[in-house]
Amino acid sequence: MAPQYAPSLRSRLAPMLLVLQLGFILIYAFYIEIESNVKVYGITFSNLYPEFQDVNVMVILGFGYMCTFLVRYGFSGSGFNLLVAVIAIQWAIILNGIENWYYRGKIRIDLKSLVVAEMCAASALISIGVVLGKTNPVHLILIALLEVSGFVLNEWLLQTLLKVPPLNSIMLLHIFTAFFGLMLTRILYRKGSEQPFEKEKVDRKTGLFSILGTLFLCVFWPSFNSVLVDNRTPGRRLGAVLSTYLALAVSAVTAAAVSSLSSPEGKLNPIHLQSCMLAGGVSIGVSMPAVHQPWEALPIGFTAAVVSTIGFRYLKSHMLLAFKCHDTCAVLSTHGLPGLLGWLAHLLLQIKDCDDHNSQKAYHLLAQYTRRQKFPHLAVQK
Amino acid sequence: MAPQYAPSLRSRLAPMLLVLQLGFILIYAFYIEIESNVKVYGITFSNLYPEFQDVNVMVILGFGYMCTFLVRYGFSGSGFNLLVAVIAIQWAIILNGIENWYYRGKIRIDLKSLVVAEMCAASALISIGVVLGKTNPVHLILIALLEVSGFVLNEWLLQTLLKVPPLNSIMLLHIFTAFFGLMLTRILYRKGSEQPFEKEKVDRKTGLFSILGTLFLCVFWPSFNSVLVDNRTPGRRLGAVLSTYLALAVSAVTAAAVSSLSSPEGKLNPIHLQSCMLAGGVSIGVSMPAVHQPWEALPIGFTAAVVSTIGFRYLKSHMLLAFKCHDTCAVLSTHGLPGLLGWLAHLLLQIKDCDDHNSQKAYHLLAQYTRRQKFPHLAVQK
Amino acid sequence: MAPQYAPSLRSRLAPMLLVLQLGFILIYAFYIEIESNVKVYGITFSNLYPEFQDVNVMVILGFGYMCTFLVRYGFSGSGFNLLVAVIAIQWAIILNGIENWYYRGKIRIDLKSLVVAEMCAASALISIGVVLGKTNPVHLILIALLEVSGFVLNEWLLQTLLKVPPLNSIMLLHIFTAFFGLMLTRILYRKGSEQPFEKEKVDRKTGLFSILGTLFLCVFWPSFNSVLVDNRTPGRRLGAVLSTYLALAVSAVTAAAVSSLSSPEGKLNPIHLQSCMLAGGVSIGVSMPAVHQPWEALPIGFTAAVVSTIGFRYLKSHMLLAFKCHDTCAVLSTHGLPGLLGWLAHLLLQIKDCDDHNSQKAYHLLAQYTRRQKFPHLAVQK
Repeated sequence: MAPQYAPSLRSRLAPMLLVLQLGFILIYAFYIEIESNVKVYGITFSNLYPEFQDVNVMVILGFGYMCTFLVRYGFSGSGFNLLVAVIAIQWAIILNGIENWYYRGKIRIDLKSLVVAEMCAASALISIGVVLGKTNPVHLILIALLEVSGFVLNEWLLQTLLKVPPLNSIMLLHIFTAFFGLMLTRILYRKGSEQPFEKEKVDRKTGLFSILGTLFLCVFWPSFNSVLVDNRTPGRRLGAVLSTYLALAVSAVTAAAVSSLSSPEGKLNPIHLQSCMLAGGVSIGVSMPAVHQPWEALPIGFTAAVVSTIGFRYLKSHMLLAFKCHDTCAVLSTHGLPGLLGWLAHLLLQIKDCDDHNSQKAYHLLAQYTRRQKFPHLAVQK
Repeated sequence: MAPQYAPSLRSRLAPMLLVLQLGFILIYAFYIEIESNVKVYGITFSNLYPEFQDVNVMVILGFGYMCTFLVRYGFSGSGFNLLVAVIAIQWAIILNGIENWYYRGKIRIDLKSLVVAEMCAASALISIGVVLGKTNPVHLILIALLEVSGFVLNEWLLQTLLKVPPLNSIMLLHIFTAFFGLMLTRILYRKGSEQPFEKEKVDRKTGLFSILGTLFLCVFWPSFNSVLVDNRTPGRRLGAVLSTYLALAVSAVTAAAVSSLSSPEGKLNPIHLQSCMLAGGVSIGVSMPAVHQPWEALPIGFTAAVVSTIGFRYLKSHMLLAFKCHDTCAVLSTHGLPGLLGWLAHLLLQIKDCDDHNSQKAYHLLAQYTRRQKFPHLAVQK
Repeated sequence: MAPQYAPSLRSRLAPMLLVLQLGFILIYAFYIEIESNVKVYGITFSNLYPEFQDVNVMVILGFGYMCTFLVRYGFSGSGFNLLVAVIAIQWAIILNGIENWYYRGKIRIDLKSLVVAEMCAASALISIGVVLGKTNPVHLILIALLEVSGFVLNEWLLQTLLKVPPLNSIMLLHIFTAFFGLMLTRILYRKGSEQPFEKEKVDRKTGLFSILGTLFLCVFWPSFNSVLVDNRTPGRRLGAVLSTYLALAVSAVTAAAVSSLSSPEGKLNPIHLQSCMLAGGVSIGVSMPAVHQPWEALPIGFTAAVVSTIGFRYLKSHMLLAFKCHDTCAVLSTHGLPGLLGWLAHLLLQIKDCDDHNSQKAYHLLAQYTRRQKFPHLAVQK
């Protein structure tokens, strides 16, 4: 059964793409210029470039191949993914530069702008995972434009109103995007959608392609989490890489254990292992600004994998029946729940740090006070 | 139907390979030494190594898997590609060092020599795309040796006679290689070649492998274009990366639009999207030395994709009928035409720059003259 | 025919994984901390990170996909490989830090610890190649834990008793792991194992996945060999990269020649080409500390490929009949024999260097003596 696209929609694809692209070219021609300052925050081009390429591989190859597991959709899936990614990147560069444009009249781009734009594109691609195989390319592109706009707005609101630091607000992409996707699939829900999807069949060969994409994501996830960490505090980047790496390892083992426990025959499903491995990366990405010791990453990875694997196994069909949300790529359990968990972990770690800090501060004040009593000249010197 | 190789050719493969390899070993033993100077033109080993690996991935994985789309040829195709690549690389290192050897008696190699050799190997692999599935490995290796020799000679002539800078002459590889391949297929043309090739069938599974190769090329193309840009002018490398990246994005969107327009049902062909995305990278590679603002890359990418997609769709069958050239991988429309276009863009941008420069110069002269009239002492001071 | 696992083993997988993982979490929480010293031996985070990622790609993607060639095992093979890798990495970090823990009470980890742990994981994955398709996941994990422990012990003994430098002892992993794997398959040998394995069938599509894995290994092998070479002597790292690169190229050509010679129809087997290309990388890895000129790498790569291709073709069936060792991935001929060859080459090169050094020393002494006779004041000044 061939996909039932309305013919009118098909004929709209080419004009829409041309109008969008010509619009982008005009905006770029008038408002975008290259950042001439080579060294920003101590990060040179050569230091950032390899990590930029890792993120690029994740967005183009990782997400592209992760979505090929649908037998009937693999071939076109990789093409649509590429198309959505390049449009989202161009759109995100413009949106992220609006503030810049407002104050300086020009949007200056450098490698960091591309990295941020890639992350916005990643958020659009995750959203699209929810509606994969149920929508045509015109819809996919509109969704991507909407999602990127929403994400940049959300980020701006968080930074302006709630004074959330930029890194933290970007990393919330996993939560934003999962719930955006679910909202979308609820809106697009039609009668008959609850039938098992004919296109959702998976087979071994396409499964191997899908695992390839997931492995690209796993391997380069430490770069995804560390690329925007600034280099001014030495060791912060190393910390981000180590935490992500360990969290991914822990969540792979845990996902395998839970997958084997939840299967009646004790079998291991490689798909569980690999998508729920990502849950560790998601959680640690959200909670990273508060993770200061590598071991703190391990329980976060563990819990994320448990939540994600159970969600993957039981939540998907439940969501369809209860909330009329059909979630093709199980984005809720791979990004949504682990993201929320990471946010909770971030909160708890901050409270703990605050306590430590307060008790330290109290101790420090007490010490200072005592010292001042004993050696008043020292206090003055200070 | 198994491939109809002459048995005599098959038995020649092993002796040819052994003789070639032993010859290379002797030449390397007597004439090649490692470059002891670690820092050349401000580029250290650590700065260049990641980009060298990107180019390496493109040559071995990218071109290797791009050619697996032929159902009957995929498995051996990846093997032949690897074989041709490693022979071409060894041969190119020797040829590129001949001048060096002439003056110093020894060929000194460093990481940059490997990068240049990889680019020569890439040019051989592109040529071979034209005759893929129609020749045996012995022919492929002979073609590769010939192509690399021709390319190095061409580069030397351009640099010596026409004073073309080294970077520009290497980037002309796309044009040289496409027309070398077409000439070759014209010479190898035999009666019966105009029949639809039985080996040229594509299927979904092998299509996904081919797309994988193409995506490797897309993702690492910015490294391909920027790796040889020298680091002495700060920001030149960043400019090369940004331009290539934006041109690739624009040409992907444009290729999708043209592909959808040219299909009677408005469908999108992922193969179009992905090979014609490369057209943007090719064009910008050739025109890069004259691209100074990122936005200049966008119309170049746009035009390249239009030319390439139309070429891909209509030119291939026309070339076969009119010129008796059968072009398996559509190298003419992916590399040849976009390369020519890039060369044209380079010319136009240079003329524009010249004009700008002249008018600036005139203005400058005028300003100087005026100033000299008013403050004669300043002119003397200067 | 489905795999005949004992049901009792299946039910043991999940508890074993959970106990292991919780144990690791406890050990990490109490004994592991991040290395705060950012720059070790002149290697900064940014210099090491790209090569770390290359090794990571090799371990997760390379070995994972190399083992997918078994038709019936490809899908689960990639999952088991990932599971074994992440457990081996966590275990190796602990074992490698034991000495550190003994003296300082804490294990400090940085990026280099992860690289060493990845190499231990690679050694476990190579061992597992021998028993692939014949064991269940519980066995695989136990084997991996045992192998990593044995490897770290072996390394410690070599470094402590025989005063082998750390880099050399790590690179012996290829020899250790091949013979560990063979010993294992000998122990696990049961009646009926000599029958042709039903699971060992290879098909074209899964063959392409396997080649993909092998190509990842080939492309990033220079990083594998150079990542632990210290940066203090400038040019050592460049030398390691160039030698490995050239050895891989030579061994690919040679493997193709030998493969074509040994086939009755003169055909080329891409599998030969690609696994025996690795032989060059293995040999050069083991002999690298003594390779000082790039050309020395070429005969080593040549011999390794000859030995490996002949071993691949004739040794596998012989091993099964004579020694009752069934070697699924031909680890003996890909890692064992080339490793031994590299060790031999290392010995020969060291003897040669020693001779050169001795004769130089003798010459030097003679020169000094003569000089002292002629200009006694110079000797004093010195």
